[in-house]
Amino acid sequence: MSKLSSQDIEKRLLRFPDWEYFDNAIHAEFEFENFKDCFSAMSRIAFECEALNHHPNWSNVYNVLTISLSTHDVDGVTEKDFNLAEAIEAIVEPIDE
Amino acid sequence: MSKLSSQDIEKRLLRFPDWEYFDNAIHAEFEFENFKDCFSAMSRIAFECEALNHHPNWSNVYNVLTISLSTHDVDGVTEKDFNLAEAIEAIVEPIDE
Repeated sequence: MSKLSSQDIEKRLLRFPDWEYFDNAIHAEFEFENFKDCFSAMSRIAFECEALNHHPNWSNVYNVLTISLSTHDVDGVTEKDFNLAEAIEAIVEPIDE
Repeated sequence: MSKLSSQDIEKRLLRFPDWEYFDNAIHAEFEFENFKDCFSAMSRIAFECEALNHHPNWSNVYNVLTISLSTHDVDGVTEKDFNLAEAIEAIVEPIDE
């Protein structure tokens, strides 16, 4: 997996309006109804992470989930991060809306 | 629930060697074998949080879990935080050791 250029990342981010690129990673914050809903989404995301063998840097406070994705090996963002972001969106969006 | 003094907190922390007090909260970091073990512990902790109706500020990167506990209403640490810390220790220690 090769590191994507800023230009490549910004182009891909047009399809991911929840996500922003800074500090060599892509970041998103999602708000849920309550802790249970938030942690349920986290559990579903955790399974995707294992399936993709790619893991986020993420934090949670009550109903808010903050996620940063980057690829450690290249110290930047790769297709792996966008694959995981896409999987996360598929989980979060139906709950979030 | 009333805010505990620094002295009260430090005294209670003698029973919690994994935890440190700073920035008006108590903090601990736990390391697991891998992401699956770490997220399994998080799931068990999540149930305790709901049962105690008290929720952490926590982050995860792969096999590392970082937890901060404080009581928002009093902007400090209360017995609630030590109750949750105790529940967390009961979950994490057998896995961790």
